Amino acid sequence: MDDLWYSEYHTPHVRFSVKVSRQLHYEESKYQKISVFESPEFGRFLTLDGIMMLTERDEFIYHEVITHTAMAVNPEIKNILVIGAGDGGVVRELGKYQGIESIDVVEIDERVVEVCKEFLPQTSCGFEDERVHLHYQDGLKFVRHTDNLYDLIIVDSTDPFGPGEVLFTKEFYGNCYRALTEQGVLINQHESPFYEEDAKAMKSAHRRISHAFPMSFVYQAHIPTYPSGHWLFGFASKSLHPQRDLKADAWNALEIKTKYYNTELHQGAFGLPNYVKEMLKDE
Amino acid sequence: MDDLWYSEYHTPHVRFSVKVSRQLHYEESKYQKISVFESPEFGRFLTLDGIMMLTERDEFIYHEVITHTAMAVNPEIKNILVIGAGDGGVVRELGKYQGIESIDVVEIDERVVEVCKEFLPQTSCGFEDERVHLHYQDGLKFVRHTDNLYDLIIVDSTDPFGPGEVLFTKEFYGNCYRALTEQGVLINQHESPFYEEDAKAMKSAHRRISHAFPMSFVYQAHIPTYPSGHWLFGFASKSLHPQRDLKADAWNALEIKTKYYNTELHQGAFGLPNYVKEMLKDE
Repeated sequence: MDDLWYSEYHTPHVRFSVKVSRQLHYEESKYQKISVFESPEFGRFLTLDGIMMLTERDEFIYHEVITHTAMAVNPEIKNILVIGAGDGGVVRELGKYQGIESIDVVEIDERVVEVCKEFLPQTSCGFEDERVHLHYQDGLKFVRHTDNLYDLIIVDSTDPFGPGEVLFTKEFYGNCYRALTEQGVLINQHESPFYEEDAKAMKSAHRRISHAFPMSFVYQAHIPTYPSGHWLFGFASKSLHPQRDLKADAWNALEIKTKYYNTELHQGAFGLPNYVKEMLKDE
Repeated sequence: MDDLWYSEYHTPHVRFSVKVSRQLHYEESKYQKISVFESPEFGRFLTLDGIMMLTERDEFIYHEVITHTAMAVNPEIKNILVIGAGDGGVVRELGKYQGIESIDVVEIDERVVEVCKEFLPQTSCGFEDERVHLHYQDGLKFVRHTDNLYDLIIVDSTDPFGPGEVLFTKEFYGNCYRALTEQGVLINQHESPFYEEDAKAMKSAHRRISHAFPMSFVYQAHIPTYPSGHWLFGFASKSLHPQRDLKADAWNALEIKTKYYNTELHQGAFGLPNYVKEMLKDE
C-alpha cells in the first residue's frame, strides 16, 4: 500500500494526520474542493476545502447531538429546516421520528449531495425519506424569503470561512428567528473553544445569536476528528429551555436507537468548563 | 527557526504532530526516556517514552478533574495517597484545600520529579506544600505494605505499558481497597473509549476495579492533547456515590479557583455516551 497520509492543520502549529488507503474522489465544484478518502482508522471520510467534514467512524456523534438534543426538548416538532447537511447525516437521524411531517434541506452545493450519494451511503441514505425536500440554494437567501414557519432550524454549516460564512451573520440569525414558530428552536454547529481561531468564531457566533434570541445556550460533545475533539453546539429558542423543558420520558418512550446521545448525557452536555463559560460571558 | 515537529501515533493510522521550538531536555532514566519540549501552541510539554504526559496549555483540565471530583464529594478528606504524578500537578490542585492534612506521593522515577522541578514550575510548584511527602518507590509495593488509612487514593499513572502497568492490576486495586477508609475514594486515569487499544485498556481497568469495589463509576473530560480528546477517569468507592453524594454547596463555599472544573460539570461528566456505557456494561 502507498504510504499516503491526509493532514489537516488544526492550528499553524498542530497537525492531525490520517493514514489513507486511497483517494476515492476529487473535484472542484462551483463552491469548493470536494474529496473523499478511504482510511483504515476512520473508514471513508469527506473533506471540503481541505477540512474534514465527516468520517464513517465518528459521524454518529455529530449527527446525533445536532438533532436529538432539540427533538428531546420538543418531541412534537413537525416542520424542520436544515441548512447545509449535504451529506445526509442530519436527515438520517431526523428520519427516526415518525411525528415529523416535513424536512426542508437547503444545501448550496448540489455536488456535495451527489458525491455523498455515490461514496457515503451511510449518511446519504437519509435523503431517501419522502418527507425530505432538497433545495439547492443559498441558506441565507432561503430563510430571507421563506414564509414557512419551522419548529426547528438546524444549521449544519462548514466553518465561517468560504461558503459557510453567511450562516454566521447577524442577518442570518435574525431571519431564522422570524422563520421559527413560538416554540421554535435553532441549533447550530458552534465551533470549538480550545484553539484560538476556533474560539474566536465560537464567541462571535454566540454574541450574534444571543442578540437575536431571548434564550441562547451552548452544549458540547466529544468529536475525535474535529480540532481539539471538544466541539460546541448552540441551542437558541424563543421559549424552550434545553434542560428544564427536556421531555426525557417522552423521548425515551420513542425508543430511538442512538450510539452517543441519551437524555442523561443531554443534561450533562450543558455543563460547560469554567473557561468556556468565561468566554461566553464576555460576549 | 528549525522546522521541528514532535509526532505521536495515537493509533498506527493516526498521527498527532506539534510544532516544536526546541527540545529543552532529554535523558534515559532507570525507568524511561524523559523529554521536555518548548512549543508555540502548548508551551512546554513533557513526554515519557514518546507519549505526551502534560502540556502547559491544557494540563489544568486533567489535574482539575482528577482531584476536585473526589474532593467535592467529600470535602472532609484529610489523608491522601497519590501514585505517579511526578510532575506535581495533582498536588498543586490538592494544595488548594486547607483541610487536607497529609499527602503521600509515590513516584517510581525520581528523575521525573527533578526534571519537572527544573523545566515545569507551573506544575512542580505543587511539591513546595509542606503537607506533601515524596516517596520514590514502586506504587504497587507501597500500597501492599502501607498501614496508613487514606480517605483518597489518586492514581495518576502512565498508560498500562512499561512502568505504569502494575497500576492497572487486580492486586493493585485490591490493595487500594484495603488502604482506604470506609468513606474512601479511588480515582484513576482510565484511558479513552475511542481508539481500539485505549478502549481495551479502559475496559480491562473497569473490570478489575468493579471486582474490587462495590461502587465503580466512570466520568469523562475533554483533554485536547490526549488521543481522541475524549478521556475517562474512574471513581470507585466503598460507600460514596459521585453524583448523589456531591456536596456542591460545601465545595462552592470553599471558593477554590478552577479553570475547567465546576460542580455542574461534575454532575454532567458522569453522563456517558451510549457506546461507552455499552463497553462498560460488557465488563
